[in-house]
Amino acid sequence: MTTNRVERRLAAILAADVVGYSRMVALDEAGALAALRAARAELLDPAFTEHGGRIVKTTGDGVLVEFPSAVDALRCAMAIQTGMAARKGDLKLRIGVNVGDVVIEGGDIFGDGVNIAARLEGVAEPGGVAISDAVREYIAGRIDGEFRDGGPRELKNIDRPINIWLWSPERPRPSSVAALPLPNKPSIV
Amino acid sequence: MTTNRVERRLAAILAADVVGYSRMVALDEAGALAALRAARAELLDPAFTEHGGRIVKTTGDGVLVEFPSAVDALRCAMAIQTGMAARKGDLKLRIGVNVGDVVIEGGDIFGDGVNIAARLEGVAEPGGVAISDAVREYIAGRIDGEFRDGGPRELKNIDRPINIWLWSPERPRPSSVAALPLPNKPSIV
Repeated sequence: MTTNRVERRLAAILAADVVGYSRMVALDEAGALAALRAARAELLDPAFTEHGGRIVKTTGDGVLVEFPSAVDALRCAMAIQTGMAARKGDLKLRIGVNVGDVVIEGGDIFGDGVNIAARLEGVAEPGGVAISDAVREYIAGRIDGEFRDGGPRELKNIDRPINIWLWSPERPRPSSVAALPLPNKPSIV
Repeated sequence: MTTNRVERRLAAILAADVVGYSRMVALDEAGALAALRAARAELLDPAFTEHGGRIVKTTGDGVLVEFPSAVDALRCAMAIQTGMAARKGDLKLRIGVNVGDVVIEGGDIFGDGVNIAARLEGVAEPGGVAISDAVREYIAGRIDGEFRDGGPRELKNIDRPINIWLWSPERPRPSSVAALPLPNKPSIV
């Protein structure tokens, strides 16, 4: 008995985009496109698949992905940023992860939860991940990694302050790069 | 590429049981069973179906139901309690609704989120609904009905206090029962 009611579901939403992409494109359009395409094909898309994510939409340099589980969404975000750090290229991503009771329409998703994910992405550090209090609630004890309290933030077009938490992968110090084990995959940028 | 990883998903969990059921059974076993069976068939099960719920398990007088959406789970809980109040029988339910990133195994669901739903049910008022802060976050602006702040509560076997919110349907005052419109369905108890 499914009537005309709106289809809703709880989902974890991952929003990612490239830091300073317009500037990169202005400097070297072909190079920027190639770097992004390689990162998508070699790192992002396999990570989405592995963690059960569904790409909802892509923009020029951004992607919105829906996951059934908050734990899986965050593990995916952390794996991507760890992988990006290992690639050591110029390409840096910001990633936001949120949870919401979203409305589904023709494959697209709508609602507060989606808007907040996009805003979280905006406040993440380059190479890092920002999550809301709501996400942190679900991952307690299930994720390795320390999140710094980013405090309550006013996010654009969101009517209440959102408490945010920030994570970044361990970064190799420039002086010790040579001593670190290199990733198996050759860097492409 | 689904490997051996644990299957998780975000879900809204509704836990319901009958207030004082053991006492009812001790007083009139056949009557208690018939009342419960009628409530299940006429009110609860249709409400679960209508709101997209899946019955995970039933105990003697309790039921655990999983919903894809928190908004739908809460609307279902409120519809059930409004319906139960209209029946005017002795049978009263307590309902708890929570949201969690649950683990699924053979149709059953596990995790904090499930345990908290059961504890919320325990602190709901007879005829009422108790929800966690997490649920309230998702329903903001999407549910008609006032929730009273029940404050932070220590719930059994849950390691942190949970902020709870309480709702009960408008109850007809005893003196004005005769003046109220009766429900179409005849009361069965």
